[in-house]
Amino acid sequence: MKLYDADFAPSPRRVRIFLAEKGIEIPTVKVDLRNREQLGEEFHKVNPWCTVPALELDDGTRLSEIPVISLYFEQLHPEPPLIGTDAKDRALVMMWDRHMEQDGVAAVAEAFRNSHPAFKDRALTGPHDVAQIPELAERGRKRYGWYLEALDRRLADAEFVAGERYTIADITALAAVDFARAVKVGDIDGHANVQRWYDKVSSRPSAKA
Amino acid sequence: MKLYDADFAPSPRRVRIFLAEKGIEIPTVKVDLRNREQLGEEFHKVNPWCTVPALELDDGTRLSEIPVISLYFEQLHPEPPLIGTDAKDRALVMMWDRHMEQDGVAAVAEAFRNSHPAFKDRALTGPHDVAQIPELAERGRKRYGWYLEALDRRLADAEFVAGERYTIADITALAAVDFARAVKVGDIDGHANVQRWYDKVSSRPSAKA
Repeated sequence: MKLYDADFAPSPRRVRIFLAEKGIEIPTVKVDLRNREQLGEEFHKVNPWCTVPALELDDGTRLSEIPVISLYFEQLHPEPPLIGTDAKDRALVMMWDRHMEQDGVAAVAEAFRNSHPAFKDRALTGPHDVAQIPELAERGRKRYGWYLEALDRRLADAEFVAGERYTIADITALAAVDFARAVKVGDIDGHANVQRWYDKVSSRPSAKA
Repeated sequence: MKLYDADFAPSPRRVRIFLAEKGIEIPTVKVDLRNREQLGEEFHKVNPWCTVPALELDDGTRLSEIPVISLYFEQLHPEPPLIGTDAKDRALVMMWDRHMEQDGVAAVAEAFRNSHPAFKDRALTGPHDVAQIPELAERGRKRYGWYLEALDRRLADAEFVAGERYTIADITALAAVDFARAVKVGDIDGHANVQRWYDKVSSRPSAKA
């Protein structure tokens, strides 16, 4: 098994943190996103959607998409549970995780990829060039603000994003917050519950993964 | 258990088809999307993200997000399998399903919601108003064209979207194609493999659900 990984990107980090929490170590292959290796012919065979992370199994099967790869590892290594302990709990964790991705990570990506010069014509991942839209950069910033407000309300009622246990939803939310800070789309100042949660999750050893 | 459902929308249809394939019947509550009932105070208690479908369990737990609701039912009623038969197969099906959603359904929604007058200031689902961006409507149409090309290539090699069995990925792709036809974002003419697959999946009794 090997994991296609990359530096400086929030997506592969989400899987690295997940694996660190599980205590799973597997060989990795670095993909050079800065030189657009993910768009090349070689990587196209691994993942025609041109995204990292991707996972290659020993029988040659290739998997893409973070929640898919994560659930695969969860089924192989159920302990500690990061995506729920039974059908209902799993559904709740996956629901929160999707919202952290769609409302958090995706909002930051929308703001960043539609404004940074390095992403000119690369406003979306994938094999096709997509032009930046300045209004989308604005929209992404606004959406990230709404996301932080909603996350703060949630964390007023719950210790972790999906409830009383640390789960994959915390990993995704941590990736969103750190991504937003790194690319200057927004910070968590003024959101006391998010700050309390952030201090806790970012001090776990896995956060360095 | 009850399912919050709605007329004329591709999202709740995806769950209705899934349940029909499983032979599951549960009580439904209709949400009036045309009068924006999904944004009202009552429905906010059911799903603060204001989307339909939503599922309420007998203990009061509320679930949102189609893949989450679908996987919950799959675990309760494994037969016939629509999301895979083991960890690897499940991962492959979920991967294909996510791509059908992100590249297909989401592309059509981007085109439609950013152009139709009824969605003025409702370019995204959720509690916040979001203005339409005409360039996004164009982008959505283009993305849907790319999606059909990729789907046609896939269906040249595979009988169904995720491989040799009918799965949730076919349901999502069918919803994308029918949505695009209904709102005139595009049609499948000229994509012979998509046409062959479409004739087969749309003639299953579940497609009427």
